[in-house]
Amino acid sequence: MPLFLAPNVGSLPTVTNYDRDSDTQTSTGWLAPEDLELIRANMPIVYVDAVPVRVDELGNVTEVGMLLRVAADGTISRMVVTGRVLFNERVREALMRHCEKDLGPMAMPRVPANPTPFTVVEYFPDPLRSGFYDPRHHAVSLAYVVPVAGECEPTQQALDLTWFSPEEAVGDDVREQMTSGHDRLIRLALAHVGKLP
Amino acid sequence: MPLFLAPNVGSLPTVTNYDRDSDTQTSTGWLAPEDLELIRANMPIVYVDAVPVRVDELGNVTEVGMLLRVAADGTISRMVVTGRVLFNERVREALMRHCEKDLGPMAMPRVPANPTPFTVVEYFPDPLRSGFYDPRHHAVSLAYVVPVAGECEPTQQALDLTWFSPEEAVGDDVREQMTSGHDRLIRLALAHVGKLP
Amino acid sequence: MPLFLAPNVGSLPTVTNYDRDSDTQTSTGWLAPEDLELIRANMPIVYVDAVPVRVDELGNVTEVGMLLRVAADGTISRMVVTGRVLFNERVREALMRHCEKDLGPMAMPRVPANPTPFTVVEYFPDPLRSGFYDPRHHAVSLAYVVPVAGECEPTQQALDLTWFSPEEAVGDDVREQMTSGHDRLIRLALAHVGKLP
Amino acid sequence: MPLFLAPNVGSLPTVTNYDRDSDTQTSTGWLAPEDLELIRANMPIVYVDAVPVRVDELGNVTEVGMLLRVAADGTISRMVVTGRVLFNERVREALMRHCEKDLGPMAMPRVPANPTPFTVVEYFPDPLRSGFYDPRHHAVSLAYVVPVAGECEPTQQALDLTWFSPEEAVGDDVREQMTSGHDRLIRLALAHVGKLP
Repeated sequence: MPLFLAPNVGSLPTVTNYDRDSDTQTSTGWLAPEDLELIRANMPIVYVDAVPVRVDELGNVTEVGMLLRVAADGTISRMVVTGRVLFNERVREALMRHCEKDLGPMAMPRVPANPTPFTVVEYFPDPLRSGFYDPRHHAVSLAYVVPVAGECEPTQQALDLTWFSPEEAVGDDVREQMTSGHDRLIRLALAHVGKLP
Repeated sequence: MPLFLAPNVGSLPTVTNYDRDSDTQTSTGWLAPEDLELIRANMPIVYVDAVPVRVDELGNVTEVGMLLRVAADGTISRMVVTGRVLFNERVREALMRHCEKDLGPMAMPRVPANPTPFTVVEYFPDPLRSGFYDPRHHAVSLAYVVPVAGECEPTQQALDLTWFSPEEAVGDDVREQMTSGHDRLIRLALAHVGKLP
Repeated sequence: MPLFLAPNVGSLPTVTNYDRDSDTQTSTGWLAPEDLELIRANMPIVYVDAVPVRVDELGNVTEVGMLLRVAADGTISRMVVTGRVLFNERVREALMRHCEKDLGPMAMPRVPANPTPFTVVEYFPDPLRSGFYDPRHHAVSLAYVVPVAGECEPTQQALDLTWFSPEEAVGDDVREQMTSGHDRLIRLALAHVGKLP
Repeated sequence: MPLFLAPNVGSLPTVTNYDRDSDTQTSTGWLAPEDLELIRANMPIVYVDAVPVRVDELGNVTEVGMLLRVAADGTISRMVVTGRVLFNERVREALMRHCEKDLGPMAMPRVPANPTPFTVVEYFPDPLRSGFYDPRHHAVSLAYVVPVAGECEPTQQALDLTWFSPEEAVGDDVREQMTSGHDRLIRLALAHVGKLP
């Protein structure tokens, strides 16, 4: 259950469409909205998801960061960093761009050396297809755990960024603030780093 | 260096475009060719690559299978199984569909339980961008090693399927028959299974 | 909480020490019990853990198998397949040997082609050190998900083998039958294959 | 082929046994040499291997670090960081300890958040058993790629530390300076991070 539904999402220009601004640039310039709609209705879109974490000096994950923002389903929810890969952009570049966009310029994200995601998240317009839901489109998202060493401050459309211990991150309080399968993604990320309680 | 350039590729309808037939179905039916072109020029496309292997009873990879076919760059080359993920299709389903399409209905591919690819291959129209090349588009491909237990026979546009030992698969003879970075993909796959010589 | 404590474990020769029979053979023959004790008190021991699963034709994990047996801590608990790697034995061979020993000769386990474990489980005599507990020794265990295609029947010291859906496997009923962190290992395994609920 | 055989290894106390000093401490204090020999002859030993790398701001591996030292086989060879896991020591702690021991106190190694090694290296006294060789014992080594951010200087028994580009690291010049399969380990590490040429 999300915190609450965003009233009149359409009238809040700064939070309407969280990846609107920087994501529609393409090889031929900017993609017209109707063309983006055509693509979204016909092809899976390449995404990256980043779970920001704090690590201690031995590499143990001690905290998980979650944004509070207007999600794709219109709710205000806890979320991970997420966004499109652009034409001609390396996956690594997209990951860094979205981390900086959402966590601020001083976050110092450490994108892993290994290009393999810890899981592949398949978001579908049908919530039952995979358990991961996006009403806008079918997205295939490469998900990474990204340690951040610097100071984070939510930017752009994010309303807040909060750090949770692994226990808190999988607890009922936080789970109820997440939709679209993001709570499950957090559990998969914590399992990957051996910290799922 | 490919074996040879395919003469008059355009006049060979059955081999012109190796993923033409089954891949353009979408949520709204079939995608018009001009719309596919629009998408290809503007967005990365989701792909899967499958490296077919034979394993012994302990799971050791003993042989790597390679197709001989008209590649995206117009050469006749050794290649792995590759193709698009369709709208509303799970990655796992795409992997199985392309394996069956290329290896035949009796191949009995064993798609891994773990959805994580062993590497993410980024194909670009610019051959220097990542070392993986596709003149048609920018594709982000999830690459898997897929043990096949049954009888394989090349189908559709593939001209041949040959099995190589790990040593042969990375040898100069086979490497010279591969283009677009597929030889490197084979090495990454063999490293993943601990069999890179 | 285990099902119940095994009364007089010492007087039940067939279940006393679940890896007694086949595991103490070494390069110099059989290791004397006092030497095994010396080693256990001084060095981490190499182990393998195998989580047996059933998969559908697309590779989706549909069921998890768990043994009922006398655990290292003396309880009768639900457990995964586990055991030592012997001197001069490949990890892959140990994995196959323990699967056959515990699941029977017709289980047809499919040891993965990739030698990398999905996690490394560190069992300590101190239950608080890592959350994984073994009163006998410090063991570093390479953990794998192993699809089994054939008929399983518990052998040797196992009292029972039961298959659970992913939901059941992480439910309270099954969790209460597990000790030493094995319930957590099941969750890590299900996360690895994308099936953690 | 190693650079040269170390003459009179036994008379060079500082380089005789590269993991002698800090590795034999156990739960019961220091392990007597004869007991260590007993264990080595009877049980696989748990090891960690670390491939030190330099990464750019996007996480791309740009350089691989290799030590020059007296190897287990008595040759002076290029090697990765390697050493035992002690009784009661977490794998992560062993990894950090060996990195600091070999690379110096200012190296600032970043042990990955994910505890899964990129490969499992099985060293055997028989050079043909797996291709990885150690005349002293059977070791099962968890191998990690470890980015180092600080200043490295070889310490203890290492004679030198040199950084190589991925191309150089797999080139004939460097390969000829490595023994025991360490050249292959470098290739597996580079494949894991997508940088195998």
